[in-house]
Amino acid sequence: METGRYVAVLLILSLVSQSLSQMIIQIPPENHRSAPSDPISDGRRNRDADDLYCDSWRFSVETNDAGTWRQIPSRCEEYVKEYITGARYLSDSDVASGDSLAFANTVEVAGNGKDAWIFDIDETLLSNIPYYAAHGFGSEIFDENSFDEWIELAEAPALPASLKLYKEVEQLGFTIFLLTGRAEAQRNATVKNLLFAGYSNWERLILRGPSDLGKPAIVYKSEKRKELEDEGYTIHASSGDQWSDLLGFSTAIRSFKLPNPMYYVA
Amino acid sequence: METGRYVAVLLILSLVSQSLSQMIIQIPPENHRSAPSDPISDGRRNRDADDLYCDSWRFSVETNDAGTWRQIPSRCEEYVKEYITGARYLSDSDVASGDSLAFANTVEVAGNGKDAWIFDIDETLLSNIPYYAAHGFGSEIFDENSFDEWIELAEAPALPASLKLYKEVEQLGFTIFLLTGRAEAQRNATVKNLLFAGYSNWERLILRGPSDLGKPAIVYKSEKRKELEDEGYTIHASSGDQWSDLLGFSTAIRSFKLPNPMYYVA
Repeated sequence: METGRYVAVLLILSLVSQSLSQMIIQIPPENHRSAPSDPISDGRRNRDADDLYCDSWRFSVETNDAGTWRQIPSRCEEYVKEYITGARYLSDSDVASGDSLAFANTVEVAGNGKDAWIFDIDETLLSNIPYYAAHGFGSEIFDENSFDEWIELAEAPALPASLKLYKEVEQLGFTIFLLTGRAEAQRNATVKNLLFAGYSNWERLILRGPSDLGKPAIVYKSEKRKELEDEGYTIHASSGDQWSDLLGFSTAIRSFKLPNPMYYVA
Repeated sequence: METGRYVAVLLILSLVSQSLSQMIIQIPPENHRSAPSDPISDGRRNRDADDLYCDSWRFSVETNDAGTWRQIPSRCEEYVKEYITGARYLSDSDVASGDSLAFANTVEVAGNGKDAWIFDIDETLLSNIPYYAAHGFGSEIFDENSFDEWIELAEAPALPASLKLYKEVEQLGFTIFLLTGRAEAQRNATVKNLLFAGYSNWERLILRGPSDLGKPAIVYKSEKRKELEDEGYTIHASSGDQWSDLLGFSTAIRSFKLPNPMYYVA
């Protein structure tokens, strides 16, 4: 009797879910009455299909399911531009920052200066959107020369959610390390830019030295974390927009992935 | 008196929430030009703000920035329902499955049976959406008894993208392990359900034995992966909807996070 009732409920659920799935496939997404050959409605249909796909592509990139990727799919170039320049990038950054602060507040900071928080720089503390806006928001092949020129300008603004988090983490008494894939040769421009954007009071700015230049980011950053551990630091958290900021060895107790659908650093 | 006031407040809240949910259903999604004081456009504004926030909340959950979480934020309950029952969940699952297959195709399978692929079961191979549809899509407090009854029914359908991947991984010659948080007592129902959903030819189905019952999922699953490594298996990949399927020790060479904004398993 009990089982019979379950079966009946399941049958109904299954019928509902079948008609739901048919609806999902068959119905046009909006009061769509034009013939398929209408170029405007085709545009709209493609746009909806692209948005659906590109949302999923972003899921795959942000969860690291995609692994190494070299270029934004061409159908997602407009999507990435709208994401980055619209409210969603700021909103995602805000929520990531809120998660980070919630964790920071649970840590009992010892007061001996050994409680470390590591921040990446590009697309974490500093935003290179002014540069990428002039270079297709990541859809163009990366040009190291023009990006190095941009770094020398030292005018990248802060990512607002990260600046807020940085100041709160600092106030809570964490020792702040900046760990970046930028090279030692870019130290002066990087310091100048960080100060310009409102950052100060970091303990150490770690850049790639001569022996680090050929290393994959994940190896270089793990090695540097290991050195901090060997110096007696407890790495409570890493904040970065790349999985290579967060994975590898000597990883932080908590890792915070910031959004970045523009490029991938191996 | 105090109680009376509470009841009155609750009544009003309930009325407001009813009319809000009606508004959500009734308002036209596009071409909406009413003044801001118009209750319909206010509904639209809330809906847009909620969607923006809930998209970011989902980012934070799917990247593991959120860490342990117990409940869907109440403002995101409708969002999660729409995500799960609409095209986006299927699309995200498809792209994750595509990433997994792309990786599978790069592996040179040795032919000695030692190349392993691990699948989680719930919300990975099998979909419990018929159950969660009747329980607020994760917004209700998890009720172990009713979920166990659902498991005994053995009628969970396959997640389509995972069934496709499973068959392809099998054809490529991987040895398939199923590693689930379900208990040994649920073995028969689980096998019955897997066969019902179209799965077969796994090497081993690993469930929680008596000594595993109290362990956090991440520890239990890491220990089981370690045992497979000790038996000489190379764990090329893990597929799971929970970060506790993927992180810990003896992790796979590649991990594939499937979407799940309904619940978190610690």
